[in-house]
Order: sequence, then C-alpha cells, then structure tokens
Amino acid sequence: MADKNKKWYQNSGADGDVVISTRIRLARDLAHLPFPARMTAEQREEIINRVFGAFPEAQPCAFERHRMSEFSPRAILSMVERHLISREFARDPSGEALLVTADEGVSIMVGEEDHLRIQVMRPGFDLDSAWQEATCWDDYLDTRLHFAFDERLGYLTQCPTNLGTGMRASVMLHLPALQEKGIVQQLAVTVSKLGLTIRGLYGEGSKPEGALYQISNQVTLGITEQEAIDNLRGIVSQIVREERTCREALRGSVAFEDRVFRALGLLQNARLLTSSEFMSLASQVRMGAALNMLEGITPDTVDALLIDAGAGAIMEAAGEDLDPAQRDLRRAQLVRERLR
Amino acid sequence: MADKNKKWYQNSGADGDVVISTRIRLARDLAHLPFPARMTAEQREEIINRVFGAFPEAQPCAFERHRMSEFSPRAILSMVERHLISREFARDPSGEALLVTADEGVSIMVGEEDHLRIQVMRPGFDLDSAWQEATCWDDYLDTRLHFAFDERLGYLTQCPTNLGTGMRASVMLHLPALQEKGIVQQLAVTVSKLGLTIRGLYGEGSKPEGALYQISNQVTLGITEQEAIDNLRGIVSQIVREERTCREALRGSVAFEDRVFRALGLLQNARLLTSSEFMSLASQVRMGAALNMLEGITPDTVDALLIDAGAGAIMEAAGEDLDPAQRDLRRAQLVRERLR
Repeated sequence: MADKNKKWYQNSGADGDVVISTRIRLARDLAHLPFPARMTAEQREEIINRVFGAFPEAQPCAFERHRMSEFSPRAILSMVERHLISREFARDPSGEALLVTADEGVSIMVGEEDHLRIQVMRPGFDLDSAWQEATCWDDYLDTRLHFAFDERLGYLTQCPTNLGTGMRASVMLHLPALQEKGIVQQLAVTVSKLGLTIRGLYGEGSKPEGALYQISNQVTLGITEQEAIDNLRGIVSQIVREERTCREALRGSVAFEDRVFRALGLLQNARLLTSSEFMSLASQVRMGAALNMLEGITPDTVDALLIDAGAGAIMEAAGEDLDPAQRDLRRAQLVRERLR
Repeated sequence: MADKNKKWYQNSGADGDVVISTRIRLARDLAHLPFPARMTAEQREEIINRVFGAFPEAQPCAFERHRMSEFSPRAILSMVERHLISREFARDPSGEALLVTADEGVSIMVGEEDHLRIQVMRPGFDLDSAWQEATCWDDYLDTRLHFAFDERLGYLTQCPTNLGTGMRASVMLHLPALQEKGIVQQLAVTVSKLGLTIRGLYGEGSKPEGALYQISNQVTLGITEQEAIDNLRGIVSQIVREERTCREALRGSVAFEDRVFRALGLLQNARLLTSSEFMSLASQVRMGAALNMLEGITPDTVDALLIDAGAGAIMEAAGEDLDPAQRDLRRAQLVRERLR
C-alpha cells in the first residue's frame, strides 16, 4: 500500500528512467440524457448529484467530492499542472464537479466534454494495473448510473473520436536523447500509422517542453481496449529501448557531462528561474540522474519538481497569487532546496 | 615574512576587494653600450654576464638566474600569464635572461626593450612598498653596472616614452560594477588628461577580459617618481571608492544575486571551460566574494585561479603541451577543485 499522505506522482514506477507516468482515461455518458454541449443547468446539476450519490455519504468513501466552483483559479491551475484535470475542464468551472482519491491517482471529472471522464494515473510504465483500476470504477459506476452503450458501436460519447471503447491510454515519456538526435519528429509519423499519437506535455497542441512527450492511442472504434493497450505497450517499449540506446551513446562524452552538470549547477544556484528555463535544465538533469551521474538525485526527484515548480503549484504553496517575477524567485528557491 | 613556498600573488593585499595587484617597473640601460635594437650578439652576452655577475655565485643570492632559452614555450607562456615577463620579452627568448626571486615578487628582464627591466609585483594596493623595493634593487645594480643617466633628462632609455624616471607604476583593478554601468570608457578619457592610462589585463592593446583593468602613469619626463606615484595613488583611491559604491548599489538586487550564483554554479559544475568564459564567470564570482555573498570564497581564491587557469599554467601543471579542448577540460577540473 502506498503512503496515504503521498501523491501518486511522488512514488517510483517501472522504467522510470524514461517513463514518467501512465494514464488511462475513459469517456462515459449517462443514458437518456443529452450530451454536455446540449444540457440545461438543471441536467448538469442532476448528473453531479447522481455521481455524488453513487458514493453514499454514510460509507467510508475512496473519493473526495468537490464542486469545481469551490476552487480558486490558482488551485485549478495547479490541478492542471499535476494532470488531475484537463485544460478544457479548467476553463469554466461552473456546473462541473470533481471526485478524487487521496493520492490523486483516480479522478472523475463530471461535466467535461462527456458527462464523466474517469482517469487513473500511475507513476512509471504501468498500463495493466491502471487499466484494471479504471475498469473497476467503470463497472462500479455503470451499475449505478447506466452508461450510454450501443451493442454495435460500443460506448456513446459526445465527440465521435471517442466512440467505441471511449478509452484513451497515454504514457508520458522523457525523450531528451531522441529529441536531440531529431528522431522524435520521425517517430510521430511512424506511430500515427499505428493508430497512436505523440504530443507535448499538456496534450493536444502543446509544445514539447523539457523533452516530455505523451504517446496515446487514437483509435477507439473497432478495436478492444486490450488490443489498444497491447499496441501502445509494444510501441512504448520500443521507444524506451531506443531512448536508452541513445543515452548510452552520450554517456562518457565530456560535452554531454558538461551540459548535464552545468544544468545542475544552474538549478542549484539560480535565484530566478522562469518555467521554460527550468523545464529545459530539469530535462538535462533528469537524464543525468537516470544515468546515475548525479549523486543523491534520481529521476523521481526531478519528476516531483516538474509538478511542484509549476506556476499554480507555487502560488498554491505560497497561499497567494504571485506575478511571474515573484514566481521565478520562489521557483528558484524550491528547486535549490530540492536539489541541494 | 611571507611563506617561502608561496608566490606573491597567493598572498592578500590592501583593498583586495577591488585592487588585484600593484607593479613598479623601471627601464634601465647600461652606459657606454648601444640600446638592445642595435646590439650585437656579443654585446647581448656581455650584458647578461655583467648582470649575472652583479650577484656573486659565492653568496646566497635573492635571485634565480635563467637564460630564457632554457624554458619551453609553455613555461614562457605561463610566465606571461603571471605577469612575470612581458609579451614582447616572450616573443623571442634568444639572447635574453631573467632574474627572479623565489616568490616571483621581483624580477629583472635582461634584453627586453631596454637592457634591464626591473619589476616589483605586490598583491593589492601597495605602491609605496613596491617603489621602495624597486629603488633598493635599482641602487644596488646602478652601483655595479652604471646606468645611462643624463643630469637634465634623467635615465636614458631606448624608447623616448620612458625617458626621465624610466618608471611605470601600474595598479591592476577589478571593475565589474563600473564596467557594467559603462563608466570605464569615460574614466579612460578622464585619467588620460591626468597623465595616466587604463588598459586591459595584459597591457597595451589587450581587451579588458573579466573586467580587469590596468591603470598606470604615462608621463616619465619632468616629473619625479614620487609625484607620479602620488598622482596614481590618488586616482586609484577614487576609482576604488566609485567601484565600491556601484557594487553596494547592486547588493540586494535579486537579478544581481542570480547572476553571481549562476556564475558560481557554472564554475563549480562545468566539465569544459574556455579561457574567455572562465574570465567572465570568475569576474562575477570575484565580485560576489568581495561582497561576502559566497561562503568560503574570497577574492584571493579567484585571483590565484586567474593565474593558475591560464593556458600556460595549465600545460605547465600537466607537464605537457595540450590542445585547447584538453586545456578546457583541465581548466574546468582545476576550477571545480578550487571552488568546491
């Protein structure tokens, strides 16, 4: 059992040198109700109440239940940074609810693009266990809420790209060596032919900051969940091997060592760090840590920082809104403390 | 008494936060012999023998006596870097000799632009004691060698710019704050009107690397040595005060602190350091050290490095010639060790 006070991203996972995290997300909609785009305020309220009602108050509950309107904008930003909610969900919190476990490993967004988005996050490369847990909550909720399902099409979702399994399995990868060799672009073309997609850190349309890439299945129709997961697992395993080979080729090069230690020296000493500079330096340090070049620093140390050094996380820790210069100051302070 | 094994530049001096070193140099030529440009090989030899003869073999001697031809090019480069000999003197070592004390604080170049160049170096701001010591050896040698002297003009030298006192008093200054404010250019104009000149680290025509500037008297005719020294002391004292004021204005600025600590972080971690990058980072760190911002690092630490991290010094320490990439590697290693 994981430490109750720890968040999922503070634990180590399999293949942690290259794989940061694994995510399973299920898009689900309740039968006999319009999709979110056409719902009335009353219907939104009804869905939230039905989902909350699926976890009786009287019993000890795995989930904390929140109306999104209770949260400050900085708390919501911090949730996006730790991948607890999507950017789309953060945009307008009215009529939305969030159910989340103590370690934030399982969350349910109510009122996103679909009535429900069930999400399971795991550290490292862990598709099977994430899928098992997602299925467990999917069944639990289906029994109580009755999801829209068609025998021929599968799960019915608001956007046709999710029709069928409604499942998106994603793996977050750290690919500094492949990125440096310019191989990622080419990889993106290859995996798209295999029904997968590679994107930057925050999903669709986001830039790959800090050499972080998210690879996920695109196809949800005419394929089982297990097939999609097996397909993703196979490709990711191959990318992990290639990244490791490229890293080993760098090991022993003085220019590479120089780059890693300079990045560490800057992170350990800077008094001001923008988010973008931090991401780029942290990426170098993470690779050095994965190659056991840095005493006392592991990829996990960096992974926790990637989340805790976000603008929202810093403002949440400070308990107040801060302008970018103030955040840069606190970010540098946090990073120095963690990498001392 | 200074430690016998220590070089002069490893000791601390007055006003060491801004002043790196003080130098007195006397140009002297022997009477009844042509100036170096017109000497025959035999006459060169004669002068070397007469200077060596001024320090009898039988007695314990303050000076080591060397023919410049005994030294390897890298040893000679290293001597230039520690300001023991001039670049001009290093150019063609044939027919040249060098006399030098154990701490390298006093040296006599034989066969430079003049027959003799007597040089005294001191750490920090120390014009009077350097002048006293220079005078002492000047008198000692004049008694034995008889310098060319004219009652009306003073000492006769090969180049008329040295006629009169033949003395050049120089102070090496670290002026990062004034340089940053763009005040040094303006200062150069001002001091030239007062018979002084400001130049980069290695004298005439050299670039001001690492915010190091050499200020010295220009006028040798119609002025006593004491007047020239008093004039220089007055101006340097004023520049030192202005540099300190500018530094104090920087203290407390986060952007400044960020810059100093980043420079330190890079020096403490880089695996490859070019000379030029080293000078620029060392300058920031020296200023931080002078402002007591850096635990365990003093301006002296940096001053010793400024000499020991030179290309010649690194090759001398290695005992072999090295290409630039090999030097960058060893420079980074040395700097890490010293700043740990």
